[in-house]
Amino acid sequence: MKCSRCSVPAVLALPSHNAGFCQACFQIFVHRQVEKAIDKWAMLAPGEPVLLAISGGKDSLALAHILKQLGHDVRGLHVDLAIPGSSAPARAAVEAFCQTHDVPLTVVELAREGLAIPDVKARLRRPICSACGKIKRHVFNREALRQGVAALATGHNLDDEASRLFANTLRWDVAYLSDQGPRLEAEDGFARKIKPLFRLGEFETAAYCFLNDITYHMGACPYSQGASFTGHKKLLADLERTSPGQKLKFYLFFLERGREAFRQGEAKSGPSLSPCLQCGMPTVVEVCGVCRIRDAVAQRD
Amino acid sequence: MKCSRCSVPAVLALPSHNAGFCQACFQIFVHRQVEKAIDKWAMLAPGEPVLLAISGGKDSLALAHILKQLGHDVRGLHVDLAIPGSSAPARAAVEAFCQTHDVPLTVVELAREGLAIPDVKARLRRPICSACGKIKRHVFNREALRQGVAALATGHNLDDEASRLFANTLRWDVAYLSDQGPRLEAEDGFARKIKPLFRLGEFETAAYCFLNDITYHMGACPYSQGASFTGHKKLLADLERTSPGQKLKFYLFFLERGREAFRQGEAKSGPSLSPCLQCGMPTVVEVCGVCRIRDAVAQRD
Repeated sequence: MKCSRCSVPAVLALPSHNAGFCQACFQIFVHRQVEKAIDKWAMLAPGEPVLLAISGGKDSLALAHILKQLGHDVRGLHVDLAIPGSSAPARAAVEAFCQTHDVPLTVVELAREGLAIPDVKARLRRPICSACGKIKRHVFNREALRQGVAALATGHNLDDEASRLFANTLRWDVAYLSDQGPRLEAEDGFARKIKPLFRLGEFETAAYCFLNDITYHMGACPYSQGASFTGHKKLLADLERTSPGQKLKFYLFFLERGREAFRQGEAKSGPSLSPCLQCGMPTVVEVCGVCRIRDAVAQRD
Repeated sequence: MKCSRCSVPAVLALPSHNAGFCQACFQIFVHRQVEKAIDKWAMLAPGEPVLLAISGGKDSLALAHILKQLGHDVRGLHVDLAIPGSSAPARAAVEAFCQTHDVPLTVVELAREGLAIPDVKARLRRPICSACGKIKRHVFNREALRQGVAALATGHNLDDEASRLFANTLRWDVAYLSDQGPRLEAEDGFARKIKPLFRLGEFETAAYCFLNDITYHMGACPYSQGASFTGHKKLLADLERTSPGQKLKFYLFFLERGREAFRQGEAKSGPSLSPCLQCGMPTVVEVCGVCRIRDAVAQRD
């Protein structure tokens, strides 16, 4: 197989794009996909700083590298979840990357805030994933506001977005469907959220890390076993194998054609937001979900 | 496993309904699913006659049996496609069933109309399935109008409907999504179309035939190999295996929540219909698609 751009031998085949690339042209391909996402969705104004949530996995580190290479003013944010055996090596990968690539980094330690994930898990009766996600989003947003950075980026890739869309579609969850997309507008105390990797799959971000010598943390979260989104990812992978390119089309066609239909149906005025009485972050109730989790953990001690 | 209704040993397990049934209660279960579909969607007025398209496969014969058992005035319509090795045994199964169960039957022979499917296939450059479907729908509708029967039923089951919905959703085809459902209203020369089996999967209709000694035609159409909807059925079957009941929920939630969003976006006024200059059936162009196929086949000879 030859490179689709320059005809030297390819190192990577991308059936979903009906293309193959040598190492240099794959780099260009990945950068262009991210540029296209940022431009088309007006994710960042020229020169605008961006706070990037970096977990230490392949996606967020690849995105940090790409944004830096594209000349963006990228600042890192890592949330140390305090999960034994998992959080320390993830944090180490982030710190090493940021030092090597000159990315300023803020680390937030959940243990210092009374929200160490193992403590939250011990307290909750329901699965930890949604609470952990809620806490991380809370911290991401708080830090963006604290640092005065309007744009908050995450490393969600096409597989993440397509499987989430698939799950929302299976339930025809109109509220979530009207709200899903690579750019979520800033509003009332919430930073603008952007997903510049949404056109690239996890195979592509993993290959990008490998070809750019980026050392990332590989272990799956020890608490995420059997989460249903992994099942949906597998199903979409089967679909992609039989019809290459279908996954990207599913997501892009949704953005082009599907989403608007759900938006029209949804009332524009949701419940009104006011500052949480404890932490001051926007919430629809008096005390926000994260403060209630913190209180529950504290009561246990 | 015991019957979920009467506690005698079950002969069938239906994980999607979290139930098992003995033979007698399975019969009741199937009849109730069809009654529920007919009632909830106002498919048939009390005593109203219904023309049922009977291919000779398990679904249409099961539906003929169920409608008869439920006391409906059901009339059969079989379209003989003239496909060697396939159409003759299918027709024989329909004729035998209708004779045994006292269902009046009309047989339309496509060969007599210059539309034998092998001839159409030889003439067309594109896959035959969509042309064959178009011809059958044309004949179904024509016969319903000719016989003065307002309701036209087909044996589409949950697997058919869910895989079609899945395909339309993968493409976010808003026009098809706004129009998919178990009841399509009569309009301008089109009969009302109903799908009373939409709550039952193909395993259920096959089991119903087996338990009721209904002999049906089993061979897949020799022209349908590799059609993409079989791939989607397999994928939904995988989903159903990991989450029993998901397929029915996907379809029901679409009807409850999803469809309305697409309907709001679609203009109510499509292109206007007028009678085809050749056959008089409603069409948006001067000569309808089926007459054009017939002309193309005739030219070849």
